Amino acid sequence: MTARILVVDDVPANVKLLEVRLLAEYFEVLTASNGEDAIETCENGKVDVVLLDVMMPGMDGFEVCRRLKGDPATAHIPVVMITALDQGSDRIRGLEAGADDFLTKPVNDLQLMTRVKSLVRLKTLTDELRLRAATTRDIGIEELLSRRLPEEQAVPKVLLIDERPSSCDRIARHLRDHAVLEVVNDPQAGFFEAAAAPYECVLISTAFSSYDPLRLCSQIRSLDRTRFLPIILLANVGEEERIIRGLELGINDYLMRPVDPHELIARLRTQVKRKRYNDQLRASVTETIEMAVIDGLTGLHNRRYLDSHLNTLFDRAVSRRRPLSLMITDLDRFKSINDTYGHDGGDDVLREFARRLRKNVRGIDLACRFGGEEFVVVMPDTDAMIAEKVAERIRAEIERHPFEIGSSGQLLNVTVSVGVSSILRGVDSVEQLMKRADLALYEAKTGGRNRVVAKAA
Amino acid sequence: MTARILVVDDVPANVKLLEVRLLAEYFEVLTASNGEDAIETCENGKVDVVLLDVMMPGMDGFEVCRRLKGDPATAHIPVVMITALDQGSDRIRGLEAGADDFLTKPVNDLQLMTRVKSLVRLKTLTDELRLRAATTRDIGIEELLSRRLPEEQAVPKVLLIDERPSSCDRIARHLRDHAVLEVVNDPQAGFFEAAAAPYECVLISTAFSSYDPLRLCSQIRSLDRTRFLPIILLANVGEEERIIRGLELGINDYLMRPVDPHELIARLRTQVKRKRYNDQLRASVTETIEMAVIDGLTGLHNRRYLDSHLNTLFDRAVSRRRPLSLMITDLDRFKSINDTYGHDGGDDVLREFARRLRKNVRGIDLACRFGGEEFVVVMPDTDAMIAEKVAERIRAEIERHPFEIGSSGQLLNVTVSVGVSSILRGVDSVEQLMKRADLALYEAKTGGRNRVVAKAA
Repeated sequence: MTARILVVDDVPANVKLLEVRLLAEYFEVLTASNGEDAIETCENGKVDVVLLDVMMPGMDGFEVCRRLKGDPATAHIPVVMITALDQGSDRIRGLEAGADDFLTKPVNDLQLMTRVKSLVRLKTLTDELRLRAATTRDIGIEELLSRRLPEEQAVPKVLLIDERPSSCDRIARHLRDHAVLEVVNDPQAGFFEAAAAPYECVLISTAFSSYDPLRLCSQIRSLDRTRFLPIILLANVGEEERIIRGLELGINDYLMRPVDPHELIARLRTQVKRKRYNDQLRASVTETIEMAVIDGLTGLHNRRYLDSHLNTLFDRAVSRRRPLSLMITDLDRFKSINDTYGHDGGDDVLREFARRLRKNVRGIDLACRFGGEEFVVVMPDTDAMIAEKVAERIRAEIERHPFEIGSSGQLLNVTVSVGVSSILRGVDSVEQLMKRADLALYEAKTGGRNRVVAKAA
Repeated sequence: MTARILVVDDVPANVKLLEVRLLAEYFEVLTASNGEDAIETCENGKVDVVLLDVMMPGMDGFEVCRRLKGDPATAHIPVVMITALDQGSDRIRGLEAGADDFLTKPVNDLQLMTRVKSLVRLKTLTDELRLRAATTRDIGIEELLSRRLPEEQAVPKVLLIDERPSSCDRIARHLRDHAVLEVVNDPQAGFFEAAAAPYECVLISTAFSSYDPLRLCSQIRSLDRTRFLPIILLANVGEEERIIRGLELGINDYLMRPVDPHELIARLRTQVKRKRYNDQLRASVTETIEMAVIDGLTGLHNRRYLDSHLNTLFDRAVSRRRPLSLMITDLDRFKSINDTYGHDGGDDVLREFARRLRKNVRGIDLACRFGGEEFVVVMPDTDAMIAEKVAERIRAEIERHPFEIGSSGQLLNVTVSVGVSSILRGVDSVEQLMKRADLALYEAKTGGRNRVVAKAA
């Protein structure tokens, strides 16, 4: 996948060098010679990855990184710090500034291309979640989804799959204060372990005596439970081909043996950080969508949800020749409850009614607040006779036990009218099904309320 | 990227052949020898791409495809039909059944791997939108997002970038009844044209006299406006290397010259269909998220949105040393309006108040319904003095023009109390800012209503 790379360096020759190499790989290249320009280019939203020199006059790379990561509008753009000094302290400073990856000058081609491509791939997914192509500006989804949680500092749970005990001991020593480490020697057992517990990163050695480490990576990437688990490959000098292949398969990063402890810790931290960010983004999108389909007062699904699901349930029932029934319930004389006990009293009744409704239907039934004091329940695999019984059970339960209102525990008698309809053989439609239930409800109301009417046809 | 491929064929030798080749490329392979098993495997949610033989005893490939595409739970899984007959009619039948791509036996390696990888990449994005990894089961997001629009039959708008007039004429003839075709000979002009109009697919010839066609592909892929525009490469025999490189860059498909008209039309249709599906999915997610942050009654943002944005606006103001003010407005004696004119009357007042509020603040101000009859406006770059003036303007406007209620046009005098607060230099917080505005509002109420109170500190 191609992408736009911003190269930031105050030395023109350095910029040119990276630009030529990136262009040869069909990346689009933007350049900036100082921090201010770099930030402005990023704010304009045209950048996929930033390659950022640490040492620049004026604002240095750490400060540029910090500012990019501090603004919700640019925080998601991956930043690779490029430093002349291969020192742990620089990496730590970069991490604290929020950098996503590191390269050391002189930058070799394999490192440059693999890191950039890996970050581009991850960003493509993140962009999709951020609905980059959609009308994000209008609804400001950016800030909504990137609400910062309190900085997550928990020590990550990490899995090491490596069959050589001496190597395992060394890695365990390096990570003693930086990870809760589980070690598995057998690759297949390692795969099962990866799926069994909530790991935040897995380290895979390439040196198995009789197992292809890339097969293991592929398995982990293909399983739903481990699809987003970051993989770092521990490789040996001379395994460049395998690393490239692994990156194509979706491994996230690699380390060359002998493993430098600082580099291991830094790369582990960046992977864990990114995973946590993405997890949070996904959770936030999901939570937001849930809010759009749930009725805030009762916790039942809302009308929008019903509208989109009823068609599916209807079509499925027809194509499988299974019955399906629907009931519309309406609380009797609800307006007078509202007038007498106020809005809060009315809300108490609606909440309690929803609770009893939910209690009296099955998990596969779809119970929705249709609006006001009307509720709809869609019942798959349920014929007219059973549906009427369910409706009658609900009606009776509402009548039998008075509703508690307010904190005083005042009791109120409530009744409900119910209209029931079922799919007819031959020509039928969602609209007809709803209409028949509505007519049945009308009959129940005009017939004196507190009753169930079922419309066979 | 790796993925799980389901191979469906009733001939064990055919299954084995594909399995071996896919395994060698580190795909995970599932197999089925008949349609029923294939559908069940797909329903279990473990499949990324289906390779489906057309000719099988019992349920044939077309029927399997139709059923997979007819169920929202499996409709998103890409299906590649494999047929022994290289006939246009089979492709058309496959398309009508909903197939995403075609391969002809004997399947060559380049075709197999490129089609599969291209589909896997697209599916990875779709899955992210579908929140596959999230708790989709609980909220049934599947059906919600895949609500079928009426089948889109519009003739697609297609761009051809090809400098040879004879080739352009031929393609134009092939597509006469199947696309609204625009032809551009110059590659750079073609790039601008692709960004300028809402094309649904672009065909790019590889035969430019002095331009690298892959550079053009890369540019189209890197620009936001064209990022999701499907690209089909028109290549010559012997350009396999270039095609592979192109697929790595993100082109969607390719055709070998001489171009077979049936194949051109079929591949164009699959690309357009997929683009429309993805566009719809994105729009649906966006719309759903909008619903979660907008107050249904007034169309203003809701409290949830305010909660997530106020922090960002506050932090930005502090870090840029810019002022920021906030007002809380509360309609006076709203309960009595509700009691006298009913719920609908109250709603009319809330809607009209929201309309006037919006009219009196700037586009960059954030106006929200905070709950009930309380509204909050956050005003960036606005100091206490200006904020108080804005608040006073709103108060006066509400008092001056009576509100219309119901369809009868009955007029009602309404007033509003407003509390204003602004960020203080030195130590301040969002909570303190809100609290000061709340206190100011309380003073306005106790001071007799219909007034503005600003809290300097």
